[in-house]
Amino acid sequence: MTRHIPVVEKILSANDLMAARNRDMLDSVKVYAINVMASPGAGKTSIILKTLEALHGSLRLGVVEGDLATSIDTDKAIAAGLPAVQINTGGECHLDAVMLADALPRLPLSELDLVIVENVGNLVCPANFQIGTHMNVLVASIPEGDDKPYKYPGMYRGVQALIINKIDLLPYVPFNMDYFRQGVEILNPGLVTFPASAKTGEGMDDWADWLVTRVKSG
Amino acid sequence: MTRHIPVVEKILSANDLMAARNRDMLDSVKVYAINVMASPGAGKTSIILKTLEALHGSLRLGVVEGDLATSIDTDKAIAAGLPAVQINTGGECHLDAVMLADALPRLPLSELDLVIVENVGNLVCPANFQIGTHMNVLVASIPEGDDKPYKYPGMYRGVQALIINKIDLLPYVPFNMDYFRQGVEILNPGLVTFPASAKTGEGMDDWADWLVTRVKSG
Repeated sequence: MTRHIPVVEKILSANDLMAARNRDMLDSVKVYAINVMASPGAGKTSIILKTLEALHGSLRLGVVEGDLATSIDTDKAIAAGLPAVQINTGGECHLDAVMLADALPRLPLSELDLVIVENVGNLVCPANFQIGTHMNVLVASIPEGDDKPYKYPGMYRGVQALIINKIDLLPYVPFNMDYFRQGVEILNPGLVTFPASAKTGEGMDDWADWLVTRVKSG
Repeated sequence: MTRHIPVVEKILSANDLMAARNRDMLDSVKVYAINVMASPGAGKTSIILKTLEALHGSLRLGVVEGDLATSIDTDKAIAAGLPAVQINTGGECHLDAVMLADALPRLPLSELDLVIVENVGNLVCPANFQIGTHMNVLVASIPEGDDKPYKYPGMYRGVQALIINKIDLLPYVPFNMDYFRQGVEILNPGLVTFPASAKTGEGMDDWADWLVTRVKSG
């Protein structure tokens, strides 16, 4: 007799259960949360800091910073005046719901409207783990190239908003925006998209205005 | 009585065993192989194609292209006249030694001196899986930012050469080369490093000359 041991299935189910609990907890304290994912160096931290500026105080923001090993991003967030909690994954390639469950109570949630969770820089693994936020946001980056939706479909399928960062570099790198957008549309029809530059600030107001609307509508 | 089931340990051991077999097989046919790793969009494929040009026929080159889903990179390699084999990982975030064992016999190894294996774009997971090549090469990229050694230490520790690609973008992005190199030196003292641009061709001859020396010395 053959016995099957569904290890991966069990792990995912446990994670999903914990993600649902995180979501319930966030709802109970009326805090909206988003999970920001991207390749290494696409500009997640810069986008978060520029989002703070673009919000002009209309939402009270806290952040959870996921990183393999360092607190570089958390230090930047704290320097910008944000309540920030660090998750060091100890080499793990993604955040999971248990890590977020440990981190959330360390933020002053009763004083916040929005928590931005910055996932580990990875365009593959984080897409497989819900963590209990209300929305997944992907930060693409112009110098990564226009073929990324085609090559990393799992990530592009699983998000509710896409920021296309570093558009200030468009004159200096080959990037066919139509080809990129076609790939996005195939995988995630009608996805809300914000061309932006954390460096110049272009596009950040549109993104922040939309985010405010989403948070206020719950 | 508690029983411990060391699942991860067994998987890694099986992979290491298969990696050693790949290495023996490559040695038996006198083919040198390198494992090229990087973030998504750092320019692995472009670097490989420019390496072909910079070799000026001094080595007979074949490639193995790892990708989650598409054959975009393999198509480019074949268009450049290279013998190329595709590994679609089906969503897996890294290549492993079994995948390479399946791919290598599909190349005309007896007609080759060097096989370049392009891993999945990921700065975390591929560092944990030896595949049986003779050397691990990391392609960093200027627009990724200067903090990547600190944030992805596992990858920077496990390589024998580092190409710093897209140096043509240095005027347009914040990147402190001293800070970057300090991080590399802490993790991997004396690592051989090649500042380069696949776009302009700068630095490619130095890299190709060094690679030829390494291949010819076995």
